[in-house]
Amino acid sequence: MRKLRMGMVGGGLGSFMGDVHRKASGLDGMIELVCGAFNSSEEKSKETGKALFLPEERCYGSFQEMIEKEKELPEGERMDFVTIVTPNHLHFEPAKTALENGFHVVCDKPMTLTVEEAKTLEKLVNETGLLFALTHNYTGNAMVKQAKALVDHGELGEITKIQIQYLQGWMAAEVGQEAKIKPWRADPKKSGVGGSLADIGTHAENLVSYITGSEIKELAADLGRIGEGRVLDNDGSLLLRLSNGAKGSMSISQMAVGEENALIVKVYGSKGSLEWNQEESTKLITKWIDKPERTFTPDGNDIYDEVRAISRIPKGHPEGYLEAFANIYRAFAKHLMSVLNNEPIEKPDYPSVADGVRGVQFIHAAVESDKQNASWVKLNSF
Amino acid sequence: MRKLRMGMVGGGLGSFMGDVHRKASGLDGMIELVCGAFNSSEEKSKETGKALFLPEERCYGSFQEMIEKEKELPEGERMDFVTIVTPNHLHFEPAKTALENGFHVVCDKPMTLTVEEAKTLEKLVNETGLLFALTHNYTGNAMVKQAKALVDHGELGEITKIQIQYLQGWMAAEVGQEAKIKPWRADPKKSGVGGSLADIGTHAENLVSYITGSEIKELAADLGRIGEGRVLDNDGSLLLRLSNGAKGSMSISQMAVGEENALIVKVYGSKGSLEWNQEESTKLITKWIDKPERTFTPDGNDIYDEVRAISRIPKGHPEGYLEAFANIYRAFAKHLMSVLNNEPIEKPDYPSVADGVRGVQFIHAAVESDKQNASWVKLNSF
Amino acid sequence: MRKLRMGMVGGGLGSFMGDVHRKASGLDGMIELVCGAFNSSEEKSKETGKALFLPEERCYGSFQEMIEKEKELPEGERMDFVTIVTPNHLHFEPAKTALENGFHVVCDKPMTLTVEEAKTLEKLVNETGLLFALTHNYTGNAMVKQAKALVDHGELGEITKIQIQYLQGWMAAEVGQEAKIKPWRADPKKSGVGGSLADIGTHAENLVSYITGSEIKELAADLGRIGEGRVLDNDGSLLLRLSNGAKGSMSISQMAVGEENALIVKVYGSKGSLEWNQEESTKLITKWIDKPERTFTPDGNDIYDEVRAISRIPKGHPEGYLEAFANIYRAFAKHLMSVLNNEPIEKPDYPSVADGVRGVQFIHAAVESDKQNASWVKLNSF
Amino acid sequence: MRKLRMGMVGGGLGSFMGDVHRKASGLDGMIELVCGAFNSSEEKSKETGKALFLPEERCYGSFQEMIEKEKELPEGERMDFVTIVTPNHLHFEPAKTALENGFHVVCDKPMTLTVEEAKTLEKLVNETGLLFALTHNYTGNAMVKQAKALVDHGELGEITKIQIQYLQGWMAAEVGQEAKIKPWRADPKKSGVGGSLADIGTHAENLVSYITGSEIKELAADLGRIGEGRVLDNDGSLLLRLSNGAKGSMSISQMAVGEENALIVKVYGSKGSLEWNQEESTKLITKWIDKPERTFTPDGNDIYDEVRAISRIPKGHPEGYLEAFANIYRAFAKHLMSVLNNEPIEKPDYPSVADGVRGVQFIHAAVESDKQNASWVKLNSF
Repeated sequence: MRKLRMGMVGGGLGSFMGDVHRKASGLDGMIELVCGAFNSSEEKSKETGKALFLPEERCYGSFQEMIEKEKELPEGERMDFVTIVTPNHLHFEPAKTALENGFHVVCDKPMTLTVEEAKTLEKLVNETGLLFALTHNYTGNAMVKQAKALVDHGELGEITKIQIQYLQGWMAAEVGQEAKIKPWRADPKKSGVGGSLADIGTHAENLVSYITGSEIKELAADLGRIGEGRVLDNDGSLLLRLSNGAKGSMSISQMAVGEENALIVKVYGSKGSLEWNQEESTKLITKWIDKPERTFTPDGNDIYDEVRAISRIPKGHPEGYLEAFANIYRAFAKHLMSVLNNEPIEKPDYPSVADGVRGVQFIHAAVESDKQNASWVKLNSF
Repeated sequence: MRKLRMGMVGGGLGSFMGDVHRKASGLDGMIELVCGAFNSSEEKSKETGKALFLPEERCYGSFQEMIEKEKELPEGERMDFVTIVTPNHLHFEPAKTALENGFHVVCDKPMTLTVEEAKTLEKLVNETGLLFALTHNYTGNAMVKQAKALVDHGELGEITKIQIQYLQGWMAAEVGQEAKIKPWRADPKKSGVGGSLADIGTHAENLVSYITGSEIKELAADLGRIGEGRVLDNDGSLLLRLSNGAKGSMSISQMAVGEENALIVKVYGSKGSLEWNQEESTKLITKWIDKPERTFTPDGNDIYDEVRAISRIPKGHPEGYLEAFANIYRAFAKHLMSVLNNEPIEKPDYPSVADGVRGVQFIHAAVESDKQNASWVKLNSF
Repeated sequence: MRKLRMGMVGGGLGSFMGDVHRKASGLDGMIELVCGAFNSSEEKSKETGKALFLPEERCYGSFQEMIEKEKELPEGERMDFVTIVTPNHLHFEPAKTALENGFHVVCDKPMTLTVEEAKTLEKLVNETGLLFALTHNYTGNAMVKQAKALVDHGELGEITKIQIQYLQGWMAAEVGQEAKIKPWRADPKKSGVGGSLADIGTHAENLVSYITGSEIKELAADLGRIGEGRVLDNDGSLLLRLSNGAKGSMSISQMAVGEENALIVKVYGSKGSLEWNQEESTKLITKWIDKPERTFTPDGNDIYDEVRAISRIPKGHPEGYLEAFANIYRAFAKHLMSVLNNEPIEKPDYPSVADGVRGVQFIHAAVESDKQNASWVKLNSF
Repeated sequence: MRKLRMGMVGGGLGSFMGDVHRKASGLDGMIELVCGAFNSSEEKSKETGKALFLPEERCYGSFQEMIEKEKELPEGERMDFVTIVTPNHLHFEPAKTALENGFHVVCDKPMTLTVEEAKTLEKLVNETGLLFALTHNYTGNAMVKQAKALVDHGELGEITKIQIQYLQGWMAAEVGQEAKIKPWRADPKKSGVGGSLADIGTHAENLVSYITGSEIKELAADLGRIGEGRVLDNDGSLLLRLSNGAKGSMSISQMAVGEENALIVKVYGSKGSLEWNQEESTKLITKWIDKPERTFTPDGNDIYDEVRAISRIPKGHPEGYLEAFANIYRAFAKHLMSVLNNEPIEKPDYPSVADGVRGVQFIHAAVESDKQNASWVKLNSF
């Protein structure tokens, strides 16, 4: 038994997501960062490594170099898996290369720019049997898991209606400065065909599937590109039809002035309904056809055992974004440890490469629908 | 100076809406109920009148009789206006007859079953100069008026995005019993082509226009008819495009299990945004591009003068549904008194016959869009 | 069957409480205002009556005159009861005179200035058998009644702890202007020995007793008189011991800057607890030793039948302050009608003269405790 | 530059607080755990160390041994400071020994059992110049720091009133099993004279001082010992008088059925007021004499620079209990690093040994007051 050893691609000094992945992966003492290709400049990569107290020789100037060199190290010393925290257009190549060289992968979302790339990774994962986790971190929240469990156990009855929104306002505050501050997010070559669709829409899509156990089959999207010179979508309203027959709507925006990170999902069934709001993540509000409103809390009463086990601290002591993110890493680490111990877990609880494929299909379907004046487009037509 | 005298059409014993209209109209001591055609059975009409301590001779068996007989009474004794609280299909005839006979009208929504009827009433109102109020009661809330005032004063900047939901669950609790309990609401002949669209969707449509000052120009609707044998819509998701260029979505349902009367509107502009929830009607939450979240309350700080004047009681003492409803009647009564005194108010603050026309267009546009698999339909194409 | 006929003492034009009592008493169509001694100036009294469309001859210049004249009118024409909405020091005499002359009484709180006066009224009520209601209006809220019912039915187990606060900030906004605006509230001769204690503290005291069914036995009070020249308390913290052995605390203030009408009560028992906040009056939050948090709403699921009957409109349509106030009048009217019909109700649901006595004892006990540096003082020592 | 090296006293496998301290200290990558006396059994201590991937030789059977052995190691290898996470009665000796041997100290609260012990530590800290942090973790919340900053900058005006509650219900759920589950908390020898006073009351006391900048000067306490055979307080209501003249109340309980970790503080000043609720820790609600209610959020608009710097992730991404706890460690680590670099920070932002002394005085004053039937007792009389 030892800590799992992680190598990071991207996440140089000042990178928000790099820091999040480092804190989240380290929280439970199961994973240690041992190397990184933090930046395409070797010098900057080493600078980052120094600030993280890493040995200089394991701070590489490219993911290719990292994979090549680490591969030569003995097991137990070399990294066990790669985590990819780069901009969208730099997910595919490192993931592919890692898988081809026998390394397990954790990857940020959206998985790739194109559906073809996504399916290539899916094929590789299936062929190699290597583990692959996509960091749709919101599914790591205890109350999201309780929501899923309530649906799975049939408590809500048949799901009939969905309402989901993911609204942020930061882009409005940065109009004009956007290109400077987060340049790759505004550049289709680096972000892909979707703007907010890729950045936050895929989280919403994944959350719907995760909780309801039913996928978005087709959608009709009316996107917005608010602000002068904006090329990619930064706002949108969508109609949704799910594979189980439920209908619903999605509202996304990064121009919703005043909103911080307002991811709110409402699920209606024939016996009950539920509502979860990421900004008040430790509450799950449920309403019932024949009972008063009930609010669940992590480690509170009537929580499913598997959900209770997620919490690190007793009820009333809030866990937040980093802890939910860490739950993805913990689930991945448990799976990987179980594999290394030849006793693989049957149903690991983290987003998979298949989730990644569907996310990319979602982006392309929405962009295509919008081009056709919000006509219905099927996700599996991509 | 005397109280205004009201005659009621519909609202027999046990009628929810009849009781609401009576309490709302009476609250401010400006209107008194003097007669009624409460029921199509004269006997039942008189029974209702007795319970209301009305003289028997002014309880009529039909609206025609009421209008005819009241017309013969001297001014000051006869009713000044008619209020219509019948099922949807019984709005048009009494309204038309009242207007043709010189009586002002208050009418419940939706105004009529068809657009043609609606335009007939609009024409009559314009020709006769008589007053006409439609009881879109939610616009009577102080915090809705503050929302409108913030938009009108440009505080939110240019409006870019709308999100509105009106969700109820009562119909789910009454599946199977529905026809028995509220039969006319399930019957297209009495309810019109729209089910939930007519019942609650029109409130949502009106609220968007009222607050933003911009109308829904076109929509795409994906409706649901949940439950066996259901003919009329009882669920729906809609994409909206407003005349000012803003986009958005609407979610309505009377099958949203657990929801009570969840009318929630969110309006986003270039400088700020606002959110109002009918179930917490005394709060208006606003968020800003450069200031912390602010919550307005009736009679609280920084309320516009004309909004503060709406409140009957000091801050912290909640007014609710009946008071908001009463605000429609009070605004109508003030207008009518001003007309009777030959000093007409310039901008009376209650929903008009034009609002009524647009509401009926909305219903028909949504039903048509749904038939065409959620294609875009313009409201003014009806 | 006819409407009950009410005569009002106090409540001249511009009086907040007069208007509230008129709207509340009239809401349910069971009571009509027929006469009043609205002001000690006969001229002003008639002016008020005119604005209310009352006949001039029934607008009196004093309560003595009103009682004397009305007494001479035939039953069915004369007033049935007197409602007293004057400043605190003008409750006792009109109430006493009304009772002595055979009129039932509704009276605002606190009932009297002294405990002796309070007991005089109690004796008179008991001797005459006339009805007497004290308008502790907050007990008229449906969710307060649900709270009481939960305790009465033993759902919370044995009550062990109470926390109550009643905080307002308006007096802080009026520092310096106070004497001008609400002069009698700052004047011990007119307000009595208690300031905020009388104005809001008695509501808190009554609410504790109403919900728990247990009275405050003794208290220790540390009062504040914030602001230059302030004579009466406008702030205070109290320790409470209840007759059933429960303990707790009370916090009151009219100098709590920013608070509107923040009356919040929390009751803890051995099996569950509850919280009610007047500013969100349509929610009752309950927490349990072995169940998730449940939120009750008026007309929602699992509401006791007698509580459901209180609501005038279906779930999700908020009733507020005026409706709760009207519930006191409605309960009183039902009781009075039942008495007039010789079929008296057994347990009328409105605050009684005994509640009034206890309220005045509460004020005096708190003032005495404060004088003794927050020593324990028993309520029944007065 | 290297990570700071921490030795832990207590925190064996299964210890809630040990795990919290480990996660919190490790979160920011500034501190690494290098050794521990996790348990008084050397075997169990080594077992814990193994699970934490520590070398066996640095897992000690007693804090004395740890301090002795570590002292012999060279600087940079030996631990830099000791963190003490044992039950209350085992804080004093390790802290004293560590200080006497030149090690800096982080210590859980309450600092010691007696005031004498507390003052001994204070003297040692002052004499040695070593650093000492007390983990009153709630002061690590960004919104608590914003609250303090608002008061410090005079935004609220003169502070006049305080209301604080810290309510939990877990002990009610464990009645009868308590001795088994958390035995030392029910045993005066191990817990000290205070039960809930020590466990949660000291947090409340510290929070009041931290936010207002004013100390509790005297108090009157009415404590409860709910449940058969209960020796230590598990409930209480207190009146408070602060050194600046403000008054207020405190309510604490671990028998408040249904409450999770309900630490709520309200502070009123002459210009504004604020409210913070630990269970919704990312909101700070403020109310104003002349402005609408404003809600602050970490990294939101109008946050003081020094508060914004606390957040690790952008607005809308909640940080929770562990992050607030980590802020204490981070502030301590920054201070210690600055000292090691001979550039000491002027105003380190973490609770000090003086806070510890006052906490122990608070416990003793409250217990004494309760003995004297809630008479006033001054904190500095101990």
